[in-house]
Amino acid sequence: MKFFGIDVGGTTIKIGLVDEHACILDKWAIKTDISNQGENVLRDIYHSIMDYLKSHQLTLDDIDGFGFGIPGPIKDSKVSFCANLGWGEKDLKKEFLELLGCEKKVKAGNDATVAAAAEFWKQNGKYSDLVMFTLGTGVGGGIIIDKTPLDGFNGAGGEVGHIVVDFKYQFDCNCGQKGCFETVASATGIVRLARYWINEYQTILVDDESLTAKAVFDAAKQNDPLAVFVCEEVGYYIGYTMSMIAATVNPQVFALGGGVSQAGDILLSAVERNFKKYAFKAVRNTEIILADLGNDAGIIGAAYLVK
Amino acid sequence: MKFFGIDVGGTTIKIGLVDEHACILDKWAIKTDISNQGENVLRDIYHSIMDYLKSHQLTLDDIDGFGFGIPGPIKDSKVSFCANLGWGEKDLKKEFLELLGCEKKVKAGNDATVAAAAEFWKQNGKYSDLVMFTLGTGVGGGIIIDKTPLDGFNGAGGEVGHIVVDFKYQFDCNCGQKGCFETVASATGIVRLARYWINEYQTILVDDESLTAKAVFDAAKQNDPLAVFVCEEVGYYIGYTMSMIAATVNPQVFALGGGVSQAGDILLSAVERNFKKYAFKAVRNTEIILADLGNDAGIIGAAYLVK
Repeated sequence: MKFFGIDVGGTTIKIGLVDEHACILDKWAIKTDISNQGENVLRDIYHSIMDYLKSHQLTLDDIDGFGFGIPGPIKDSKVSFCANLGWGEKDLKKEFLELLGCEKKVKAGNDATVAAAAEFWKQNGKYSDLVMFTLGTGVGGGIIIDKTPLDGFNGAGGEVGHIVVDFKYQFDCNCGQKGCFETVASATGIVRLARYWINEYQTILVDDESLTAKAVFDAAKQNDPLAVFVCEEVGYYIGYTMSMIAATVNPQVFALGGGVSQAGDILLSAVERNFKKYAFKAVRNTEIILADLGNDAGIIGAAYLVK
Repeated sequence: MKFFGIDVGGTTIKIGLVDEHACILDKWAIKTDISNQGENVLRDIYHSIMDYLKSHQLTLDDIDGFGFGIPGPIKDSKVSFCANLGWGEKDLKKEFLELLGCEKKVKAGNDATVAAAAEFWKQNGKYSDLVMFTLGTGVGGGIIIDKTPLDGFNGAGGEVGHIVVDFKYQFDCNCGQKGCFETVASATGIVRLARYWINEYQTILVDDESLTAKAVFDAAKQNDPLAVFVCEEVGYYIGYTMSMIAATVNPQVFALGGGVSQAGDILLSAVERNFKKYAFKAVRNTEIILADLGNDAGIIGAAYLVK
């Protein structure tokens, strides 16, 4: 079986042909044309795929489904809004089926949910329920329950980045709230915390453009006092937030993905310690893994939706 | 169609015959025999039901399913443990089918999940996703997603009473943690908060056995300063906890049930105000309703499981 997984970003659209074993058979990228409220996006994807099929002696009959990952809230394959693409409400499934002109499986999911689906598929039946945090510029969350991605009633299921968990720093969040999880647990949040404490702790870090999350993790590996303290703070917020989610949806496993997860053991051990400290005993042994599908997660997870 | 809904408590087992419209056609109760690790419980239920059927000229052929509500964690109708009944691990479905001696739909759920199912069924298709808090001696939680009760991987889905949300009082919880949601939001928690503040605020309340959650609510309705303050505190913890769950599972509606919910508007307005303060904008308009199916919720919700 063959599926197209389409990872729609604000700059680039990644398109991949994926088989039933989550293997990418081929992939390419096109630019995202966000002019006129992104009205060309779906048509550009359609034409790019049709060109590909033609040049590979394939037809739509060879394809079993089209899955989309979209950076915005989605419910039943309908987009509520998507600032990065200029989209307002959009019935993606209906519009793409009109372009195809034939009955096919078409589904769309939020990009963080799609990343969770990719990790889930990659684990190949090891887990039935998974919650994934994607720690990048912000924090995305994806929830798979009983093998099914959870959209939520407004398409905001798994929007864990906007759970208010910090009452100590109360940094402003882009969403308008203060103290959201992503203000202290994203790559941006880590830099923010390092800057906040830079005069209070000994450190090799310097407050200029060299101060990145990666620089903090590298310094922590050398036992830099500031960097170690920041990793502990971030580990607390991640572990504590996981403990709340564990007592709510009680997943089989938490997966940490995205740039921040590349900190590896130093962060993971702080996360695990804090998770066990705050988690209800019935869920205290929930497994926590590092996920890293890299750049292909969006393609694979999107294909999972129509598998 | 006819179902038996069986609400198994540590003292009493309520058994009800329920039709496909969530109407109770008949109901009765038997005592719970918890001797010998509750080994007689299922057999007692079976005999009571067979006696009922016989005396009403009915047979097992007239019954479409048997649903159970159990006060403990349950996964796929298997009990992990149930302190109130003396049960350890128990494959309830298998054991009850052996008693029946024929193929029937048999399912079991956690009692708080079953209460959520009852409210969901009562709403008759108005909602597809619902999260219910049952505020009583403790705080139970039940989650229905896309019409399906969420068990969670360890049967601990919806155990919201043990989310740590209080860092101010840090009261000890029965579960071994400090600051669990139920330490400040259950009926017991309300009394605890009133006692904690009784010397700091003017009040008509007296610190003796007359100090109940209901007494606090009654006093709040008369603008008693202590009682009003306690309602505000409880409203904060409920509203804040809801905001976290809203950004995780994004339900269509929250239902507040149990004794504490009978406080009515005074508590509900504090809950709504605090929910809107902390909730992510995409979920800020999630509806909050008061649920009160009373004592029949367990029977109706258990029957829903096999409907």
